[in-house]
Amino acid sequence: MTLSPTSRTTLGRLRERGATDRADLYAVLDAGLVCHVGLVRDGDPVVLPTGYGRIDDTLYIHGSSGARWLRGGTSVCVTVTHLDGIVYARSVFHFSMNYRSAVVLGTARTVTDETERWDALRAIVEHLAPGSWGYARVPSKREMAATTVLAVDLAEASVKIRTGPPGDDAGDITDEVWAGVVPLTSAYGVPEADAHVPAGAAPPAHVRTR
Amino acid sequence: MTLSPTSRTTLGRLRERGATDRADLYAVLDAGLVCHVGLVRDGDPVVLPTGYGRIDDTLYIHGSSGARWLRGGTSVCVTVTHLDGIVYARSVFHFSMNYRSAVVLGTARTVTDETERWDALRAIVEHLAPGSWGYARVPSKREMAATTVLAVDLAEASVKIRTGPPGDDAGDITDEVWAGVVPLTSAYGVPEADAHVPAGAAPPAHVRTR
Repeated sequence: MTLSPTSRTTLGRLRERGATDRADLYAVLDAGLVCHVGLVRDGDPVVLPTGYGRIDDTLYIHGSSGARWLRGGTSVCVTVTHLDGIVYARSVFHFSMNYRSAVVLGTARTVTDETERWDALRAIVEHLAPGSWGYARVPSKREMAATTVLAVDLAEASVKIRTGPPGDDAGDITDEVWAGVVPLTSAYGVPEADAHVPAGAAPPAHVRTR
Repeated sequence: MTLSPTSRTTLGRLRERGATDRADLYAVLDAGLVCHVGLVRDGDPVVLPTGYGRIDDTLYIHGSSGARWLRGGTSVCVTVTHLDGIVYARSVFHFSMNYRSAVVLGTARTVTDETERWDALRAIVEHLAPGSWGYARVPSKREMAATTVLAVDLAEASVKIRTGPPGDDAGDITDEVWAGVVPLTSAYGVPEADAHVPAGAAPPAHVRTR
């Protein structure tokens, strides 16, 4: 299934970097932990980082019901970016980054159905910390009431991916100047128990094996 | 020097996570590689990832002069986020992330002075790949003409930082459930020379020591 390009998601430039397969969209979203949510407040753009989850073709974000930016019915843009490497070229003009990014456009919908709210929160927690929903205490009625969940359909989206070496001009290529890619990776460190965990208690498997 | 809070940058929630020192803003911006630029297009928000540079209290972004989103005079929001750890709590309600983020609001200014344009591009390249401006070929007249540089004043900005263990409710604390933080770090990998670099040629020091 391919993404439906609209005038907004059809790439304006560097079309060869656009990926139109829905699997690419899922892959970029599922590999991320933080999205940047853009919205318009009093005519000006605001971009805020937050966690998210995905169920099929719906992306969910959540927050305190007191958060002023979390309002259904508003136009949003949700962007997820992975930086995979720094591209060193022979001319500074061709320096670049290798990256994967997904840009989702849509109108946020406040989720009101309690089953969908529950499933969405589970998706968000499991996205952030797989294995945790069945391990930690699930939300109380009071906690559910204090939480707003918004849904964004994955209907209008674009994916851009850059991989590979620099695109130097032929005239710049010489034996004397190094060019290539310095890869960037992220990694999980050793889990740090908080002060209430008994000394020597090992983290559970879903944390240990992250 | 502290940041000047306005009604837009005064934090709506979790005020204790706000940092108001300008040094914190510099630190978050200088430690990042990608920013997410938000702008309003036809009334809807758009959020795009891009590189950036900083000189004193000015943040610079750049792109092709053909890029339709790079327009001076428009209101922008530039957000830089570092994810430092996943916070595992004893209740899913208190799961969180440790992070540092900076949100800069302002009106983008098209840089027209050729000296400022040159300095801005050097700042952007040196931010992305320190040591490269004095090593790779600098921009030609044609390349300069093909490049748009925008400036955003670091006048209206907010910084949010979360560190430390989960904030579990006292009633959830038990010896049976592990809680703590799984740190997240990013690291540079081994440089990968492109196909034009002679076999066995070592990368220059500014790449090797990254």
